[in-house]
Order: sequence, then structure tokens, then C-alpha cells
Amino acid sequence: MKKIINAVDQVENQMIEGMVKAFPQYVKKLDCGNVVVRAQKKTGKVALISGGGSGHEPAHGGFVGKGMLDAAVAGVVFTSPTPDQIYEGIKAVDDGKGVLMVVKNYTGDVLNFEMAAEMAADMDGIDVKEVVVNDDVAVQDSLYTTGRRGVAGTVFVHKIAGALAERGASLDEVQAVAQKVIDNVRTMGMAIKPCTVPAAGEPGFELADDEMEIGIGIHGEPGVEKKPLETADEIVDTLLEKILADIDYAGSEVAVMINGCGSTPLMELFIVNNHVADVLAEKGIKVYKTMVGEYMTSLEMEGFSITLLRLDDQMKELLDDEADTPALTVAK
Amino acid sequence: MKKIINAVDQVENQMIEGMVKAFPQYVKKLDCGNVVVRAQKKTGKVALISGGGSGHEPAHGGFVGKGMLDAAVAGVVFTSPTPDQIYEGIKAVDDGKGVLMVVKNYTGDVLNFEMAAEMAADMDGIDVKEVVVNDDVAVQDSLYTTGRRGVAGTVFVHKIAGALAERGASLDEVQAVAQKVIDNVRTMGMAIKPCTVPAAGEPGFELADDEMEIGIGIHGEPGVEKKPLETADEIVDTLLEKILADIDYAGSEVAVMINGCGSTPLMELFIVNNHVADVLAEKGIKVYKTMVGEYMTSLEMEGFSITLLRLDDQMKELLDDEADTPALTVAK
Repeated sequence: MKKIINAVDQVENQMIEGMVKAFPQYVKKLDCGNVVVRAQKKTGKVALISGGGSGHEPAHGGFVGKGMLDAAVAGVVFTSPTPDQIYEGIKAVDDGKGVLMVVKNYTGDVLNFEMAAEMAADMDGIDVKEVVVNDDVAVQDSLYTTGRRGVAGTVFVHKIAGALAERGASLDEVQAVAQKVIDNVRTMGMAIKPCTVPAAGEPGFELADDEMEIGIGIHGEPGVEKKPLETADEIVDTLLEKILADIDYAGSEVAVMINGCGSTPLMELFIVNNHVADVLAEKGIKVYKTMVGEYMTSLEMEGFSITLLRLDDQMKELLDDEADTPALTVAK
Repeated sequence: MKKIINAVDQVENQMIEGMVKAFPQYVKKLDCGNVVVRAQKKTGKVALISGGGSGHEPAHGGFVGKGMLDAAVAGVVFTSPTPDQIYEGIKAVDDGKGVLMVVKNYTGDVLNFEMAAEMAADMDGIDVKEVVVNDDVAVQDSLYTTGRRGVAGTVFVHKIAGALAERGASLDEVQAVAQKVIDNVRTMGMAIKPCTVPAAGEPGFELADDEMEIGIGIHGEPGVEKKPLETADEIVDTLLEKILADIDYAGSEVAVMINGCGSTPLMELFIVNNHVADVLAEKGIKVYKTMVGEYMTSLEMEGFSITLLRLDDQMKELLDDEADTPALTVAK
């Protein structure tokens, strides 16, 4: 295992500390552990909280800030945060208007977030609601999930529901728009190189020099098919075919996210987008906005995912609202 | 060689096309080749042009836009663009107020940019000036350079000189502030994994499983020392020692850039910044702004560089001016 770290049991702490030291104008860390909240609490609004295991940077701490999240809770690498951590996050951000939890569909995450919500309701009378993101069309059930997994599409939920919360909408309204994003967002990914969880010391799966894995998840869990490496265009065709079979995007406007898994050069992500844009144009699907970069990574996994979000006027407006967070505004 | 591409001789074209298709509101490509300019030409100002070989994405096309560059010229991977390409870029962006070329110090780049400037002056009467960035303290001369190499610090030149140009300053003023940045910026990098130029098919250097290369350049050229892999904190100490020995930053305010080389997970860059921030605080060097991410990459090289820029009031103000480019504003 070759990593630029200090100690296996320090990666989460030092990552969070390093993020907070880089962006003190945006975020601070709670004393109770790896919970990141806005540097200045925004009052008078519904609060959004998300999180999950570490190793998906910039998710989720990088999305804490104006127009997106109020708190992000980070567990150890690829492991759900504890209910206590999440509970502390909920208490820190609630301002009497309620809290929406944006949870990726993994059994551990769902259980722990829901337990935290019960604690906050029972002990503090906080109104907590939840949405569960399940955008990955690759597999119906997986090693860690019942139903589809929640992956990069989660970032669109943060962005759009976060914008509506920032405008002062009610908890029910924010939950409804988050659910609308979930209903209209689909993702599929692939990898040419696995990642190594620091505490494990070994890659999560093996790939030969000429092999790729299609339908990969974001925790180094295997995909649906190992096959010989193809060209970028062929891979795009495979992923898009699966996504487009799941939702009928014909005639609609979409937001596109080409998400790098952690060690994919931007050059290759642009080459991927070149063909994605061509295929969507051919099929009469209009691209409203494209994001290319690293949003939901898996440590140093090499590969990418394609996310399509079918938009309506409300989602377009909210997607365009200003967001100002460490990961979405690098140097302003 | 395991890459997500279509064909070795198509990587530059398809990368540029994919970038332009992702960000049509920001950039367009000239018909003459891989030259990217702003989608809407900004008139009445000095124009900034930069570029170099491809493989450094998001540099330089990702920095074309409001408050930064007017054009970026992309050669084939790690190879200078031709004088003709650069000349076309100069002609496309000049609006009668002159053009500043921001050139990284590599022999081929300097020669070709200067030849293009002569063509533009002789044939079109365009006033072209130049600055040469040489921020890398690792080596005095290298395989491709006389004098120090130009690396990630170039992005600060784009940002600060670009902001002054956007405000409407004269060519002399923009050149002067660009030179001031160059005089005050220093960088040093390292790698734990080399990169492979597509046309070469083999990595630029070899590293054993427990080895790293200190003082690496951005073209896969060897660094100054191969040694056993150390902890993140030890590596930071080594790089900062060399940087701080070159300029006396004591008592000053600095901008910090922790730049990933292409396949370094953000988690590790934050762990690096955690110690950089601590060391600078100990030494009484005040951090004004920190950037953590990928700005000047080397294909899929794994490693990072640290850049420190000593700031004065003018540079601080210009650093804070709004920039709106594909790489600096991902989702607004």
C-alpha cells in the first residue's frame, strides 16, 4: 500500500483537520468528532445534513456551505458514522425549522441516520426528515445494500435541496424537492484500478492489466462485470445504455455529471464527456449543465461514473442558485 | 498502459472538445487547432494568453474565463504548442491593448511563444509582452530547462495578472504584477507514482513499491532524489524546508496551493495541508488563502506540490477578485 499518509488510524482526523485549516471561512469541526458544520451557522432555515464513510472526498465536507449542506458527518473510511456523531450534527445545525438528512442507500448509513433522527426527536423535539438516495442503476442489491446504491447523484440532491432550503422553504418542501431529484437521477460507473482501504492494506478487488470492472460501487465493492478494457467511447456507450434504459430521458433537459473516482486524470474525464455529449445530442436529450471533476470519489480508485438528472424548471432554477462551498468554489 | 482513451493520437483533440462541450458558456475552440478562447471575447482590456503541452489539465484551458486567461494554447502531451498555434491565439484575443504571454520556463515553450510574439508584432503590429514563470525550487537546470522550471505557481500568475487585466490596467501594469507574482512564488513537488505519456506507452521513470521521488517536475522528468517513502508530515517538512530556504517568508502573509499531480486522492492532499498549515503557523507565516486540489497536473502522476506565494496588499486584492472559469467555478 503506497499512500501519502501518516498513520492508518489518523487518516480521517487529519483529513478533516486539513480541510478545516484550508477553508476556515467556510467550515469548522465540532469538538465531538468528525462532524463539519458551516463556519457561521445560517439561521432561520431548514438545515441539511449528510455524510457517510470517509474516502469520498470532497463529499461530504466539501459541500458544506451556502446553498448546500449545513453539516457533514464523516465515519471512518467506507464505514457509516455512528448515531452519536450524526445526532451531534443534527443538534448543531437545527434552528427550529427542522433538519433534512440526505442519506446514501447503504444499510449501515440508513440505520445509523435513522437512529440519530429518533434520538433528536425523542430527546430534543427536533423535526427530522430523511431522503435516501439510490441513483446507481448497476445493481439492484449489493454487498452493503438492499435496493440500489446511492452514489454521485447525491451531489445533485445536496445542490438542489440545499438551494431551496437557503431560500427559506419549509421542511416538507425541501424534502419534496430532494425526493424529486432522487426520482429523476441515475448513475453508473466503472473502474480500471481498485482502491485500498488504509486499514485493510489490500485492494478491494483485483483487475488484470487489460481488464476493467463495469458497474462498480463507491466502496471498492465489485461491479457487475469484469471484462477486457475497451475504448472510452465504448465504455460510455455501455454505461449510457443502462442509464437510458432506466429512465426515459427523451425530449428532456438534463444535468450531466462526469465524476472521477479519485485518481482519474481530468484529461480522461474530458475525453469521456466528449462522447457523452455527442450521444445525448444524437438522442435529442438537451444538456442544460455539465459538471466534470471529482465529486464523489473512492480513495484512489481509477475510473468514472456518469450521472444524468432529468430537470424541470424548478430544479433548473435551484441548480443555478449560488453555492459557495469548499468544493464548489475553489478560489473566489 | 491502462488509460480511459480512444486512440493515442486523439487524446488532445478529444480532451479539448470534451472540455468545450462541457463548458460552452465559458470557452470555445478556434478552428485552427487546439486553442481555447473565451466564449465571449472581452474587449477593451489587455489579453492574457498561456499554454504549453497537454497533460496538465485543468491547466491551461480550464483557466480561460473572467478574471483569468483570454486564451490557452494546448500542444500535444508534454510538448510545446507550435508558434503558429500561439500566433493564432494572440490574434484572436488582441483588442488593441496588447497581449501578455504567461510562459512556463521550458526551453521549447519559451522559444515557440517568443517566435509567435515576433510574428504577431511583425505581421499584425500587436504589442506582445511576456513573463516566464520559474517557481520550482527543486532544480536549477533540468532535462528541458535552463534555469528553474515553471510549475503550479503559474496558476497564481494567471489569477492575479488576470484580475488586473480584467480591471482594465495597461499592458505594462499587467506585466509588472505578473512579474511580482513570479518573484514571490516558489513551489516544490514529489511523486509516489510516475505517469505514462500516451504516445510513449511506458512510464517516464520507475519507482519501487517503497520509493518516492522528491523534486519531481511536471513532465514525468526525474526529480532530485529517489528515497524510501516517508510519512506525509516528513515529506511536507522536506519540501517546505527547500521552499523556505529560497525566500524568506517570515512575518509575511502567503497564499498556499496544495496541488495534486493527477491521481492523488483529495483525502491525502488534505492530510498534507494539515501539516503545512501547522508548520507555517509555527514559523509565524500567516496564511491568507489556501487552495487544495488539482490545478497543474501531470497526467496520472501520483504526488503533490506545495506552492507558497508571498503577498502584498495589491496581490491580496487581486487574488480575491472574482474569477469565473471552468476550473475555478465548477457549479454556479
